Amino acid sequence: MGLLALTTDFGTSDGYVGEMKGALISRLPGASIFDVAHDIAPGDILAGSWVLVRVWDAFPTGTIHLVVIDPGVGGSRRPVAFRAGDRWFVGPDNGVASHVLARWGAAEAWTLDPERFTDGPVSTTFHGRDIFAPAAAHLASGGTGAELGLPLAVDDLRMLPANPPRRSRDLVRGRVVHVDRFGNLITNIPSAWVAPTALLEVGGVGVSGVRSSYSSVEVGELVALTGSAGTLEISVRGGSAAERLSIGCGAAVSARPERD
Amino acid sequence: MGLLALTTDFGTSDGYVGEMKGALISRLPGASIFDVAHDIAPGDILAGSWVLVRVWDAFPTGTIHLVVIDPGVGGSRRPVAFRAGDRWFVGPDNGVASHVLARWGAAEAWTLDPERFTDGPVSTTFHGRDIFAPAAAHLASGGTGAELGLPLAVDDLRMLPANPPRRSRDLVRGRVVHVDRFGNLITNIPSAWVAPTALLEVGGVGVSGVRSSYSSVEVGELVALTGSAGTLEISVRGGSAAERLSIGCGAAVSARPERD
Amino acid sequence: MGLLALTTDFGTSDGYVGEMKGALISRLPGASIFDVAHDIAPGDILAGSWVLVRVWDAFPTGTIHLVVIDPGVGGSRRPVAFRAGDRWFVGPDNGVASHVLARWGAAEAWTLDPERFTDGPVSTTFHGRDIFAPAAAHLASGGTGAELGLPLAVDDLRMLPANPPRRSRDLVRGRVVHVDRFGNLITNIPSAWVAPTALLEVGGVGVSGVRSSYSSVEVGELVALTGSAGTLEISVRGGSAAERLSIGCGAAVSARPERD
Repeated sequence: MGLLALTTDFGTSDGYVGEMKGALISRLPGASIFDVAHDIAPGDILAGSWVLVRVWDAFPTGTIHLVVIDPGVGGSRRPVAFRAGDRWFVGPDNGVASHVLARWGAAEAWTLDPERFTDGPVSTTFHGRDIFAPAAAHLASGGTGAELGLPLAVDDLRMLPANPPRRSRDLVRGRVVHVDRFGNLITNIPSAWVAPTALLEVGGVGVSGVRSSYSSVEVGELVALTGSAGTLEISVRGGSAAERLSIGCGAAVSARPERD
Repeated sequence: MGLLALTTDFGTSDGYVGEMKGALISRLPGASIFDVAHDIAPGDILAGSWVLVRVWDAFPTGTIHLVVIDPGVGGSRRPVAFRAGDRWFVGPDNGVASHVLARWGAAEAWTLDPERFTDGPVSTTFHGRDIFAPAAAHLASGGTGAELGLPLAVDDLRMLPANPPRRSRDLVRGRVVHVDRFGNLITNIPSAWVAPTALLEVGGVGVSGVRSSYSSVEVGELVALTGSAGTLEISVRGGSAAERLSIGCGAAVSARPERD
Repeated sequence: MGLLALTTDFGTSDGYVGEMKGALISRLPGASIFDVAHDIAPGDILAGSWVLVRVWDAFPTGTIHLVVIDPGVGGSRRPVAFRAGDRWFVGPDNGVASHVLARWGAAEAWTLDPERFTDGPVSTTFHGRDIFAPAAAHLASGGTGAELGLPLAVDDLRMLPANPPRRSRDLVRGRVVHVDRFGNLITNIPSAWVAPTALLEVGGVGVSGVRSSYSSVEVGELVALTGSAGTLEISVRGGSAAERLSIGCGAAVSARPERD
């Protein structure tokens, strides 16, 4: 039986997470349900897409990622399921899977047709409970994607504009793709692209060199290092780089080889 | 073995949730424990009562809802258990079950007498750990309500003032009963009472018509729709209706049929 | 198989908790994983140490407490495991276990050598995922401490300065050791040291007597009582004592016997 991993923007002060867990466990007694993150900012598809790519293959093959960051619920965005890198996605086709699709590519995809897998009512405001949880429970209990709805061309799955990092001989350019709870600025620049002696620029400020850990500088100082996703990260030891530099997701980051 | 579903105002920055889970799992190895919500505002019985009614029957029959929003802990309010709609409530008798009792009615109820089911110490400040968790574990392991304490007349369970919605031929009146994380204003007015062409008034502002989903209006606009609890909900697409209208729980909402 | 109890400062808006759970469940299918607390303030070792001592023996013997509040990750602080009071600690040796060590003492300890128990890459910024989770999974699956690394003298484990409470015939002195979500000021003064008629002083304000529960005073009033950890606690009924008195962790608290 597949594990179920939940990533939402529901918070934990309302009953929405509970209703969704109930919908899962009612259909699939004994289901293994994991809370990944529920405090994604409301409707922040970009933040959700980053969380998802980090946890995607941390979970075992066969895991079903139930992802509900869904500001377009009830509108024209499609409810979908797809398989990529031997894990499953069930959620809205709104770009929240962009990073996952870019890295692993989807092997097969379906548009969800709730009439095929649930006889419960379907609201226009809570597909997490009414469509996605039943679909995820169906997959977790051994059901197939084909039983969920019509096949969908994987190239039709929605991707957010990618803005990939670029490099020339003298310059690497990328962007902040996530700001975490600690105020760390996580970029999309592979660390392997940047020499330990490089000069970085972010938010109008220069940072000299890529260090090995937060502890390589004094408390309160800016530090660039290789983050746990393998990309360049800008931090303040014991503080928040996002606050210090007053920048957030999308900010430009560049790196030049050191001149001597 | 019954599932245990936890709804509290403990937050997740202290150890209280952990102590309660430990109390459950120590008594009942292998227990199935579900986090419903822990970020109910401190002492907010009204918010808790709404969360509880939403999740009550989302979980399977036999589920034990362990509910600890308990500002009166150690005072005169009774610790109770009751059975309603084939699920169990264990928690303080302070009105947090009002919506559940109004909808399902209690079949039987007991005042908890900790001497009957736990030999641990009982503090005056943390009944979640010392009374409610042991009682819930007792029920989950197949114990009966009668083993928990003396029977209690179900009509004696505390109900908050109901303020039910009312309707006449030309007017429907109700209230905001919950404000969720997204700033949606959830009312107690059954959607079936209000025509799609109705004129609503809330917070001194008119809203025209009941739409099918958030996406029926432009980003930033007010919209009325049928919420996922089957009642009228006032929202701002991509924003917070509570902030826009500067109103909260308890605010009056009315609806009139459209005049042509 | 040992239970795994997770206490971190990761929050639930990033994927860090999910990555760590994935690392556990991938190595140990069927693992029992409990969220204790993830919203410890970033890097707040003191707050974490208090949460940990509260939940330490709430969980069954054999439980592995995976504790990741780790501002010094990648620096010189050691990754360690130890056994104390029949439970296990896996995490950074930075003082976060101080209260546990003071109360239970460690029976044996090891410095973690990831090469012995994981063949995954080890980042310099996320030992929770790369070192601590694999070590905890190793223990939970029946592995021994000796398989994790070299033995460490238990007296070498890092302790924060203790500042224990003191008493003379006429005066008891202690400190606030934790401020919880409700604004309760939890002290390190054993309640047994203070008579019900004592005069307390905290934050320049006098509080008369130790009461039996929050409900012993009117809403909005200051009250001293025996907290659920068995120590003196200063609260405001229905409010926040921390806000009222504008004090926090570390503040001095004293008690004198009542003079007649």
